[in-house]
Amino acid sequence: MTDQIDVFVREVGMRDGLQSVPEFMPTEAKKAWCTAEAAAGVPEIEVCSFVPPKLLPQFSDAGEVVKHALSIPGLTVAALMPNLKGAERGIEAGVHKLNYVVSVSESHNRANVRRSRAESIEDFGRIAALVRSLPAVRRPKLAAGLATALGCTIEGHVAEAEVVRVAVALAEAGADELAVSDTVGYGDPAGVRRLIKAVAAAVGGVTVTAHFHDTRGLGIANVYAGLLEGVDHFDTGLGGLGGCPFAGHKAAAGNVCSEEVVFLCRELGIETGVDLDRLIDCARLAETIVGHALPSKLLNAGTARPSRPAQAA
Amino acid sequence: MTDQIDVFVREVGMRDGLQSVPEFMPTEAKKAWCTAEAAAGVPEIEVCSFVPPKLLPQFSDAGEVVKHALSIPGLTVAALMPNLKGAERGIEAGVHKLNYVVSVSESHNRANVRRSRAESIEDFGRIAALVRSLPAVRRPKLAAGLATALGCTIEGHVAEAEVVRVAVALAEAGADELAVSDTVGYGDPAGVRRLIKAVAAAVGGVTVTAHFHDTRGLGIANVYAGLLEGVDHFDTGLGGLGGCPFAGHKAAAGNVCSEEVVFLCRELGIETGVDLDRLIDCARLAETIVGHALPSKLLNAGTARPSRPAQAA
Repeated sequence: MTDQIDVFVREVGMRDGLQSVPEFMPTEAKKAWCTAEAAAGVPEIEVCSFVPPKLLPQFSDAGEVVKHALSIPGLTVAALMPNLKGAERGIEAGVHKLNYVVSVSESHNRANVRRSRAESIEDFGRIAALVRSLPAVRRPKLAAGLATALGCTIEGHVAEAEVVRVAVALAEAGADELAVSDTVGYGDPAGVRRLIKAVAAAVGGVTVTAHFHDTRGLGIANVYAGLLEGVDHFDTGLGGLGGCPFAGHKAAAGNVCSEEVVFLCRELGIETGVDLDRLIDCARLAETIVGHALPSKLLNAGTARPSRPAQAA
Repeated sequence: MTDQIDVFVREVGMRDGLQSVPEFMPTEAKKAWCTAEAAAGVPEIEVCSFVPPKLLPQFSDAGEVVKHALSIPGLTVAALMPNLKGAERGIEAGVHKLNYVVSVSESHNRANVRRSRAESIEDFGRIAALVRSLPAVRRPKLAAGLATALGCTIEGHVAEAEVVRVAVALAEAGADELAVSDTVGYGDPAGVRRLIKAVAAAVGGVTVTAHFHDTRGLGIANVYAGLLEGVDHFDTGLGGLGGCPFAGHKAAAGNVCSEEVVFLCRELGIETGVDLDRLIDCARLAETIVGHALPSKLLNAGTARPSRPAQAA
């Protein structure tokens, strides 16, 4: 890792990607993924979800994976928590950051966590209170995702004013970070720019981050749009993991691809602290772990040339 | 087709895509592709290449395909010509537009057409003179592509000044249009914006168009970058046809995907005159014709919602 990082690329493929993989991924493989990607310079990894193992057996080894990740020097270890109970488990495990999600679409929130948005926001308030009650040394950062912020498969259009309202509620409840999330890949670059501006203006000092899925081919254009608006934290998935582009898993298209986002930043002269060649090796490892090809174009084509042009043309 | 088109999406998959498909595509399939895509509202299709059939048997039926395409009302029929001989064939066939290509990278030009850039530019001058000698009613438009304008697999970096120099030479020789071409997918959005600005400033009234490949995952971000700089003509390929993302055909990655570019424009409120649902049907047809899945994400996921948000949120 370099000292100067302009844009933080956070790996979420181990959670957002693996939750769509039906087979249980061996704990050792998850550990190897963490180790390799941290060594490539990725500063933060969402390593698991503290959901009940009955609901998502994929994360039944969450404690062991977190323990391993915490042993990696310099890595920020994040985990998803669906509720207060999950937060308690995450705190006990000692993660550096707890990620929570509320869908801005009421219908989507009910479908996803069987609660109203208001109940989810209240629950987040209880988690924030619990976190504040901890001694500073054990206090994780709290991040809240605004799911379906750019559209919803159930409700269609999601109003910007609603996104801002939920964002402000979560910020007031105690979020350190807010992730504008294009959960189902409905966003376009102009919409991303308008929404990022509106949310950032409404929540003051809270870090606004971007969590985009590449469901309809616009993912990387939306990342570029975010960069143009000053976003400096992006959630990404190695290889574009998530769903399967050729098998009709329409509900679970992948996150924007980690190595393509790092490549974009590199070409734009933006420092991510990540070694791109090593990250591409990590994507190959992820392919091996999930057992099928991932959609990343860069993974197939390679970077092919040094980043900076030669002095002489 | 609508009367008001803001951005022209030109299909090049029938030429740029099919030239990488080893099997001969039946003439009737090519005709069906043309018919369907024109009916979806695509205003221009590059239907074939007038290369010697010995070199590219895929286009041995060029005359018949052009004849069919010319029978479709309102469609602009373009064809690639590698040299003066090809131009003569194209003129005889009656195409509306002749596309020529010069690589800005000297090494790439020699590898591609076994001539120096200077010789290619001279050849283009002879073609332009031939076109000017025709009666106005038989005179096709002349478009020249600046291949490897954003980088070259052989030379690496390609200097902006070189691109501008070749662009000016081709404009002076008689090009009506110049296509800034990211032949091997080395471009990034910032580089695209700089180059488009520089070329447009240098060639005055000549239309500057964009021809981008999605070799490394940045294709659609580069299209957005082009739109931000006022580019209103884009070459695209149905389904992102070209190469095969999962088979290691690194040299021939696809053009930016037609339906994803139209989707991007639609979401940005830019009129292309194309019916997106019908265009997606065309991409399915193209999959059937080439006999394998195409990399388009939109093709798999679908547009899923109407373009314009409902009035009430």
